[in-house]
Amino acid sequence: MLNGIKPIASKSMAERVETSLREYFAKENFKPGDPLPTELELAASLGVSRNVVREALSRFKMLGIIETKKKSGMVISNPDIVGTFEKVLTPEIMDEATLQDLFELRLVLELGIADLLFIRKTKEDIAELEEIAAGEVKGNNFRINNEIAFHGKLYEMTGNETMKRFQNLLLPVFGYVMKLENKKYVSGKITHKDLVRILKKGTVQEFKDGMLSHLQPHLDRLRQTK
Amino acid sequence: MLNGIKPIASKSMAERVETSLREYFAKENFKPGDPLPTELELAASLGVSRNVVREALSRFKMLGIIETKKKSGMVISNPDIVGTFEKVLTPEIMDEATLQDLFELRLVLELGIADLLFIRKTKEDIAELEEIAAGEVKGNNFRINNEIAFHGKLYEMTGNETMKRFQNLLLPVFGYVMKLENKKYVSGKITHKDLVRILKKGTVQEFKDGMLSHLQPHLDRLRQTK
Repeated sequence: MLNGIKPIASKSMAERVETSLREYFAKENFKPGDPLPTELELAASLGVSRNVVREALSRFKMLGIIETKKKSGMVISNPDIVGTFEKVLTPEIMDEATLQDLFELRLVLELGIADLLFIRKTKEDIAELEEIAAGEVKGNNFRINNEIAFHGKLYEMTGNETMKRFQNLLLPVFGYVMKLENKKYVSGKITHKDLVRILKKGTVQEFKDGMLSHLQPHLDRLRQTK
Repeated sequence: MLNGIKPIASKSMAERVETSLREYFAKENFKPGDPLPTELELAASLGVSRNVVREALSRFKMLGIIETKKKSGMVISNPDIVGTFEKVLTPEIMDEATLQDLFELRLVLELGIADLLFIRKTKEDIAELEEIAAGEVKGNNFRINNEIAFHGKLYEMTGNETMKRFQNLLLPVFGYVMKLENKKYVSGKITHKDLVRILKKGTVQEFKDGMLSHLQPHLDRLRQTK
């Protein structure tokens, strides 16, 4: 490679149109519900073929930034961030470093959830969680499902829809990493039942300590592979 | 609406091709680097036009699931999950509920980061963090930048590239929500300098308490709007 000379950007036409449209949306201060110009108008203004415009618009549709309404044509929309994350979360083809990162991200969320949980928890939620914890028994496969149900419910209890959906996507990654490393689900000394009991009658600090103990085997593993 | 009769799915052709290709990739167990059939072959097998195939492939390219190599054509690739998240994270057109969710997500990450941080922290990291904290002074605008630098560095110290990039995307949302609510950045009694000091000489539990105190005003606000 020569110094002081950069390769010409090899972006595809669709990528360049995507970037231009993003700038246009921002500059014109588009809001959800605002109608967009037609494919033809956009193609003419951008000086590109209609196919390229369609390709770029299709990308925005996938992200939920644009939707097609029956009568009013294309409008700007409130994007679905978790849905998009779901589309890209493909453990089978993701490299191990990223999977490991996501595993840790889930751990950190789990360890940080206590304060929000204690602000939002209700008696009904706790009753439901108690029922899930009661089913915590034998068998590795069953345990994984139970694990997902229990921790999924905790996230639901935060009342944070994005976090709940995000966490539901991360839980299978968790299982995937365990499988890669040929590990079984191991819990610390504190079980799901203990956590429910603390959530019901204990303090937020007790819950934090309990969750830490519950997840301790995972943290120990990170400490070893430091 | 009639009972027992469902509306015909109104998915676009590109969406249907996207779904078919996802199933095909999974069934054939495609891995990063594996070459894909050509547009023409895919179009013929799917019984759709080449334009529709191109549109669907373009979506996969945006997600980083497919990339075009100069010599070998299209291959399966390790997707860029944070990059995709970035493409969809557009605070200007996101509804307030989602912004609020992301605000809380950032809080939870911040509150849960201590254990990972204490496993991974190095002397060099702490020295750098100390320097950033020393710049913690007057002026709201400066404070926002300093806030981003400080908390961004904390995430970098976890050695988790995905979390760091994810957090860097969430920090502006944080600022955006504060602005929406016409709030200034308020910190609890514990400042950045205090946090560095604890990170240097204190215990992980002291750091957790410190971070909680640092973020307390935000939690108080959530408690009020419960």
